[in-house]
Amino acid sequence: MRPLFNLFFSVVFFPRSPPKTARSTFTSTWHLKEKAVWGSKKQHRNLKLRLHWETMADPKTEEILAPLRAAVKEQGDIVRNLKAAGAPDLDVKKAVAELKLRKKVLEEKELSLAPAATMFDRAKMEDLLKRRFFIDQSFAIYGGITGQYDFGPMGCALKANLLHAWRSFFVLEEQMLEVDCSVLTPEPVLKASGHVDRFADLMVKDIGTGECFRLDHLIKAHLEKVALDKKTSEATKEECKDIVVKLDGMKKEEMSQILQKFNIRSPLTGNELTEPIEFNLMFGTQIGPSGLVKGFLRPETAQGIFVNFKRLLEFNQGRLPFAAAQIGNAFRNEISPRSGLIRVREFTMAEIEHFCDPSNKNHPKFDSVRTTPVLLYSACNQMDGKSASLTTIGEAVDSNLIANQTLGYFMARIQLFLIRIGVDEKKLRFRQHMSNEMAHYACDCWDAELLTSYGWIECVGCADRSAFDLTQHTKATGVRLAAEKKLAEPKIVNITEPVPNKAAIGKAFKKEAKGIMEVLSAMDPVTVGQLEEDLASKGEHTVSLNGADYTLTKDMVMVQTHQKTVHVEEIIPSVIEPSFGIGRIMYALFEHNFKMREGDEQRTFFSLPPVVAPLKCSVLPLSGNPEFQPFVKKLSQELTRCDVSHKVDDSSGSIGRRYARTDEIAIPFGITIDFDSLKAPNSATLRERDTMGQVRISLDELPDVVRNLSFGKTTWAEVEEKYPKFEQQETTKAA
Amino acid sequence: MRPLFNLFFSVVFFPRSPPKTARSTFTSTWHLKEKAVWGSKKQHRNLKLRLHWETMADPKTEEILAPLRAAVKEQGDIVRNLKAAGAPDLDVKKAVAELKLRKKVLEEKELSLAPAATMFDRAKMEDLLKRRFFIDQSFAIYGGITGQYDFGPMGCALKANLLHAWRSFFVLEEQMLEVDCSVLTPEPVLKASGHVDRFADLMVKDIGTGECFRLDHLIKAHLEKVALDKKTSEATKEECKDIVVKLDGMKKEEMSQILQKFNIRSPLTGNELTEPIEFNLMFGTQIGPSGLVKGFLRPETAQGIFVNFKRLLEFNQGRLPFAAAQIGNAFRNEISPRSGLIRVREFTMAEIEHFCDPSNKNHPKFDSVRTTPVLLYSACNQMDGKSASLTTIGEAVDSNLIANQTLGYFMARIQLFLIRIGVDEKKLRFRQHMSNEMAHYACDCWDAELLTSYGWIECVGCADRSAFDLTQHTKATGVRLAAEKKLAEPKIVNITEPVPNKAAIGKAFKKEAKGIMEVLSAMDPVTVGQLEEDLASKGEHTVSLNGADYTLTKDMVMVQTHQKTVHVEEIIPSVIEPSFGIGRIMYALFEHNFKMREGDEQRTFFSLPPVVAPLKCSVLPLSGNPEFQPFVKKLSQELTRCDVSHKVDDSSGSIGRRYARTDEIAIPFGITIDFDSLKAPNSATLRERDTMGQVRISLDELPDVVRNLSFGKTTWAEVEEKYPKFEQQETTKAA
Repeated sequence: MRPLFNLFFSVVFFPRSPPKTARSTFTSTWHLKEKAVWGSKKQHRNLKLRLHWETMADPKTEEILAPLRAAVKEQGDIVRNLKAAGAPDLDVKKAVAELKLRKKVLEEKELSLAPAATMFDRAKMEDLLKRRFFIDQSFAIYGGITGQYDFGPMGCALKANLLHAWRSFFVLEEQMLEVDCSVLTPEPVLKASGHVDRFADLMVKDIGTGECFRLDHLIKAHLEKVALDKKTSEATKEECKDIVVKLDGMKKEEMSQILQKFNIRSPLTGNELTEPIEFNLMFGTQIGPSGLVKGFLRPETAQGIFVNFKRLLEFNQGRLPFAAAQIGNAFRNEISPRSGLIRVREFTMAEIEHFCDPSNKNHPKFDSVRTTPVLLYSACNQMDGKSASLTTIGEAVDSNLIANQTLGYFMARIQLFLIRIGVDEKKLRFRQHMSNEMAHYACDCWDAELLTSYGWIECVGCADRSAFDLTQHTKATGVRLAAEKKLAEPKIVNITEPVPNKAAIGKAFKKEAKGIMEVLSAMDPVTVGQLEEDLASKGEHTVSLNGADYTLTKDMVMVQTHQKTVHVEEIIPSVIEPSFGIGRIMYALFEHNFKMREGDEQRTFFSLPPVVAPLKCSVLPLSGNPEFQPFVKKLSQELTRCDVSHKVDDSSGSIGRRYARTDEIAIPFGITIDFDSLKAPNSATLRERDTMGQVRISLDELPDVVRNLSFGKTTWAEVEEKYPKFEQQETTKAA
Repeated sequence: MRPLFNLFFSVVFFPRSPPKTARSTFTSTWHLKEKAVWGSKKQHRNLKLRLHWETMADPKTEEILAPLRAAVKEQGDIVRNLKAAGAPDLDVKKAVAELKLRKKVLEEKELSLAPAATMFDRAKMEDLLKRRFFIDQSFAIYGGITGQYDFGPMGCALKANLLHAWRSFFVLEEQMLEVDCSVLTPEPVLKASGHVDRFADLMVKDIGTGECFRLDHLIKAHLEKVALDKKTSEATKEECKDIVVKLDGMKKEEMSQILQKFNIRSPLTGNELTEPIEFNLMFGTQIGPSGLVKGFLRPETAQGIFVNFKRLLEFNQGRLPFAAAQIGNAFRNEISPRSGLIRVREFTMAEIEHFCDPSNKNHPKFDSVRTTPVLLYSACNQMDGKSASLTTIGEAVDSNLIANQTLGYFMARIQLFLIRIGVDEKKLRFRQHMSNEMAHYACDCWDAELLTSYGWIECVGCADRSAFDLTQHTKATGVRLAAEKKLAEPKIVNITEPVPNKAAIGKAFKKEAKGIMEVLSAMDPVTVGQLEEDLASKGEHTVSLNGADYTLTKDMVMVQTHQKTVHVEEIIPSVIEPSFGIGRIMYALFEHNFKMREGDEQRTFFSLPPVVAPLKCSVLPLSGNPEFQPFVKKLSQELTRCDVSHKVDDSSGSIGRRYARTDEIAIPFGITIDFDSLKAPNSATLRERDTMGQVRISLDELPDVVRNLSFGKTTWAEVEEKYPKFEQQETTKAA
């Protein structure tokens, strides 16, 4: 892997607030760890983010960063050594927590040193999003609910276009099997998946008001305050810092002791707090009227695919590999939702589960993406205090940095998709999970992270989940979620199995005999071994049936080994899971495409690519002159015929002012009907949003030209070359 | 209205089971009444539905039906007279219940007399739906949950295509404002809409097992059994019949008395039952960790639009009329879900709320649908014992049968849409709600009903909801959900308002003065009238502020009337609501398009139109010959480029057998690569599913031809005319 570029960027706050952490929202593995976000919405009204992409690291900057990089590497090596030596779990955890802290210090320093390039004003963007009803808080007239958002016409259209693009890019192009499963999920399913037992955060309640606090957030905030207090002794300060570092791996009881030791109370009322409570993040409800069937709103869409595995395999005529996909809502009852669309209680996911032979994770189309350049932030680099480095997917898979071709193939496809829908490629990286943050069943996991004013945000997870989920549901239901794999050549295997003496068993156990025979025929290899050993050593073996024990003697059963020719073997497929958080991607799209006109900071707009832009085209009559009406109507009908979503704006106001309004809602193309349109050959002006360039095109040709532009069949540059330029100064002043 | 046609059809059961009733599933007004469905899934394995569409009623049939029609009319007249005379509510209800019973007897007789035309085998269709994974019960490997279904790849693709078509046809073509709102809804919102108090069914529980029964179903089943018993006295038989007739309008207490009087017990265990319980059909949960914010899963999507009315009006620059739309899931905790996709706990709706001036419900595009023929089953015809009659939307609106143009416009559009996606137009009618089954706030309501083997099923509701919802949310929040209407000419109005004496109030109330002034300026007209009266009669008036009372005297305030010129008036818009139950429409599509090949009953398929067909095209190499592979691959890429969803089937088996497999999943077009494809000029066979006709087309042209066929830009007849026919007998036997 050759580090070609370094990515530097700088975040400047007015006022600066301390970094906070927050749990990953949408990924389907709840083991993913904290991600850095800075401050709350309110604290960020004035945030400006400056970003710069350099081909070479500045030597001066590197000089400053060198000791920080060394500190990370030192700790990384300690972690490596502890693991190699098989040190106790707690020691490793403690060392990892310290490693993370050092990584964070390094990353923040990097941010603060990078030269400014782009200015971003979040308050201005949020104002636009609300004013033009892209999004708003749900039930706003009822005071609103935190962590819930409604998408207005423009947000909804953007989302629909994004999902349509996703479906074309992944489902249709790869011929995936898309499913649409239930949201309400009975408890046993989520018990098997691990969510009932482990999908929880610790919290405490104010015993006066019932207000809830996430425990780790609360302790951290309290101890940081204590550590800053001048009256605090040096020893206590050290203790506070030490606890904050270790918080991440702490158990309920340890946290409870800290609450007592530091006499932590409600920061809002000063009231006492309850003991820590495990709060499961799933929304519970009852299915049916009896109150006996407990259910949850699904916390991820993936389980719907796993429980349908058998039918899907059948649909695919029993063949591996194949991929299933699902787009749908999932729900998480966050204790304290925040950061706008980043951490919400109700969100849309798009998930893919690619099932493949665990012994062959190559991908037939890998060569088509081999040369794709990707910015990878490997676990190793994270531990060594290095930056992310640019390489190609081919190199990363060849060198085993990425575990297999299928994972690599999807990473390349994810990147291609994100860039196509408008993500700034300079604000995209893949971060590998370090072994301690990876789910215990996963082999390798990479998050596509997008840089926003909240920091690097995980927007797509891409994990190799191995056979965990199918195995769990098999255990819970007894239905074998497995596939048959044809052997390269038939194999002769030794089968060791119990051979019952039917007559003897029948005589001994009468009507239980049949059940006992079934127990014998269903016996797994380990138990058969035990049976054989018992018969040899003790002359008898005991089996259980319906709660009772039955002793089998040598005359009733013996163990024989014989040979059998098999043509297939049963395998539990591995699962590679790309999982998209649609709301987070939308948020990043908003940030990456929020622009101001040069020289007019009040004129803001979204430069969303046509493929996802909420509407593709506007139709503006120059004035209220009734002669324009038939042309507007005809054009609107023709655009509808071409499937071009559009908006007629015949309100008063200058053309410039109306262009500004359509720019705000990201409409990429605008048609103006003016007095020249009335004369033969009838023509109109076509204007492009980002360049504000204008050309003159005949009305007959216009709908198809706009259609081709909207669906990416032609580019604006090509249109500008072909048609005469139209020169006119844009002004937002009323005509 | 001219009755041109009569619709006759016949349902024959083996074995015949008594008609049962079930509540409307998806419509957003929960006042809609029972709809006839026959029997449970199991009882219908052998159901065959025969349907016939005749241009003239058979005189013999009419002779048999005449007395039944007369009986309905007689009772209809009684209801009319009772209403005209202002008779007590209970008497009207009783008369209406009897009317419904007579209507049902008539409808069943009509069904049984119609000559057979088409055979429908539901068991066969359900087998195909499950075998090819269009749908299956959710969590089947965990034993399944009633009332919940998962859509497999083919069901999911059909649903996605249907919703895409809906969005194009309604949202894009009418430039509606589509929104995407939260599912989790806090209690106050649903309190205001009436759902918390009234969205309930009565049930009883088996005190031993906890099993729940819907009370009206239970009583009806029990009393019907009693009435059939030979030992029952004639008087009791009469009483049973009388109760069954009146059940629909009965209160909890009356039903409770019937339970006791007839000693009704659990039909499953014979155990005693609990007292009747009002069971709210919404799924409840808690939002946030405190347990203090009660919420529900939305039972309809409409409320999300109403609470966002202000922002939507603003987005539309304050102008009426405009329509908003939403596609999304809703949830109802049915006591006993049944009838497959017809009555489920989780379902997708697509709703439109068209907001307009209550004094002008004309529609600008009404003339474009004026001549649309529609089969209307008016409330009047229902009361007169007549059949549905064919008329045009224009005539129905002109004669005031349909309340207004906007309602009529949407009915015509709904019909056009349903036919376009594959509904059999001969199995579609609009049934008007009789005044007693209409929600109290609605002016007029028509259901698009589709005929299935479960009877006529309400699939789209189309109601004029007047200003009910906006008024309710205005009352609950104090936020005025109103629009401003520009007056034709400015109006001079008298304004009567309190004029405070600031000095006197300031002196009397000190720092409360400001608040009191605000109370005075926000005073509504009624209170101003009271103030004026009090000051005149008593010389003082008391106002409340923050829980305290303040007495204002004549020297502090007086009431004055002055004239003001106003240019606008405030109106609360009326709402016309077309509401689509997507699952029900899908079910009807399955039934209406389920076909068997002539002479081969085992070869079943779905004749879904290309616009909604899950996949548009199959690509079949004639055999496993590797020479075909490059052609298959190239064709697949080209089809993807043209956005044609397709399936490559290179499995073994004859072409005929593979065609049969693709027919089963409704793929309308099939391309076969054979040995002639290898020679220049390279060509392939294109086959159409319904006619099984085949033509020969060059590979270069094929992708575009299939694209045009798939998106309705050309017809199969046109293709057959243009390209040479390919003759070959289809066989399902292996080659």
